[in-house]
Amino acid sequence: MANTLSGHVVGFIGLGLMGRPMSRNLHAAGAEVVIHNRSRAVVDALAAEGLSPAGSPREVAQRAPVVVMMATDTPAVERIVNGNDGIASGIAPDGLVIDMGTTAVEATRALAKTIEGLGAHYVDAPVSGGEIGAKAGTLTIMAGGSPESISRAMPCFEVMGQSVTHVGGAGAGQIAKAANQIIVGLTIGAVAEALALARRAGADPAKVREALQGGFAASRILDVHGQRMIDGAFTPGGKATTQRKDMQQALDLAASAGLELPATALSRDLYDRLIAAGGGDLDHSGLYTIIDA
Amino acid sequence: MANTLSGHVVGFIGLGLMGRPMSRNLHAAGAEVVIHNRSRAVVDALAAEGLSPAGSPREVAQRAPVVVMMATDTPAVERIVNGNDGIASGIAPDGLVIDMGTTAVEATRALAKTIEGLGAHYVDAPVSGGEIGAKAGTLTIMAGGSPESISRAMPCFEVMGQSVTHVGGAGAGQIAKAANQIIVGLTIGAVAEALALARRAGADPAKVREALQGGFAASRILDVHGQRMIDGAFTPGGKATTQRKDMQQALDLAASAGLELPATALSRDLYDRLIAAGGGDLDHSGLYTIIDA
Repeated sequence: MANTLSGHVVGFIGLGLMGRPMSRNLHAAGAEVVIHNRSRAVVDALAAEGLSPAGSPREVAQRAPVVVMMATDTPAVERIVNGNDGIASGIAPDGLVIDMGTTAVEATRALAKTIEGLGAHYVDAPVSGGEIGAKAGTLTIMAGGSPESISRAMPCFEVMGQSVTHVGGAGAGQIAKAANQIIVGLTIGAVAEALALARRAGADPAKVREALQGGFAASRILDVHGQRMIDGAFTPGGKATTQRKDMQQALDLAASAGLELPATALSRDLYDRLIAAGGGDLDHSGLYTIIDA
Repeated sequence: MANTLSGHVVGFIGLGLMGRPMSRNLHAAGAEVVIHNRSRAVVDALAAEGLSPAGSPREVAQRAPVVVMMATDTPAVERIVNGNDGIASGIAPDGLVIDMGTTAVEATRALAKTIEGLGAHYVDAPVSGGEIGAKAGTLTIMAGGSPESISRAMPCFEVMGQSVTHVGGAGAGQIAKAANQIIVGLTIGAVAEALALARRAGADPAKVREALQGGFAASRILDVHGQRMIDGAFTPGGKATTQRKDMQQALDLAASAGLELPATALSRDLYDRLIAAGGGDLDHSGLYTIIDA
């Protein structure tokens, strides 16, 4: 990887399934990466690889002019920004905070306001592509924020992703991500019902997948997750519990906009059934096990 | 178009939105195309272009060693084959009947048995790609039948389609088509809910579509029908009533296999709402009007 970030200092908070490979890619591109995580073991492991540990989100913000967050959920992001020793207590005027996790839109707009009130800048830039995309640096990034802030974030985005779309102002990235998660969750359900029907009616699901991929039913989900369903290979990837959380968040956003989303609500219920059956840690394509039970 | 079918005589029964351009393409490829249709006006129009009218399905089968059917629904196909003056009353031993419509799997197996009982051959080869694909000769063809029969059908398939998959024995093409219609119908619903949420939550649906098309949510449906939803352009294409019929057929097939398909059942209900609201003749992507009402 080219040293496109040499001389840059980038903060990274939240070192889970996605955050670990993303922070490693920033480091591999030449950045000094200042890291923090609630549980300490992963910080120590990455420190052994040359990344720089910090004791708190505040310290990360004090040492890095650009801070990326990749946390589990909305309450975690709110703690990282507004908690004791949070980013808001350490950020310099003109600092840039980039939330690449999947966070509620209303909370995102409030966090952007807080950060901008301190003279700094906020970008919401959630991603699609899962752990595979995080490792390969081929994530799809949906960015909301001012054009200036997006430009400043771009060198980091180009290391972590292969496609960046500036969707609109603060919160627009999260709206796009909610739309993304609806399509991903529902298309997984569609492919699961289609392949289960093929198998149970006496056809070869692998042949059916191949035939359908040539026509209007073609999708990345049929390609990648259809193959997982045929193979029964449900190691995540993207966890069912995460998919479920994201769909609930999309439903909450819809409700606040006065919009009913019947298929999304049903899909959320089906993921609940998968989780109740003990499949929460499976890949989201494990929904197949509920349909072809 | 190359004259790949010159010297061939091909029968074509069922000259609707799909059948008209398909029969024209066979004619343009050099075949003598013997046509029949329940309503006469379209036969006269195509006869003026050089296709050869026949008075009944029986006459088509008597004059053409290969007969393609592209009828509206399962009862229509059953009439064409088994009715007075039907194909079964005229077909020669070693004749080949190809059903390219979307027909119930059990009925298909029964029709194949009838035709094979007469010493002739039966292929079910439903298509995906809609009127656009029919006109352009770029349909996706999902074929069920014996390898010999599929080989014999291939010169015609290559004129009408760009992708042919031999899925399995008699009925397997229809199973693949049922799977296809589930994915198409449910993905349209997914894209409709996603883009409606984007718009109502304050983002630009066109930007969101663009961002999502780079990631895991990418599909032909998001590409083609997502654009239709953004433009409000719901001239068919594929009609909502046809989509609804195909999903009911898939649900019937599932029920006979002891399989419950909750998302398909919900989607069928949503198409029912679209039809009840007067949108039956809209393109199936017109489902958007029910979600973002």
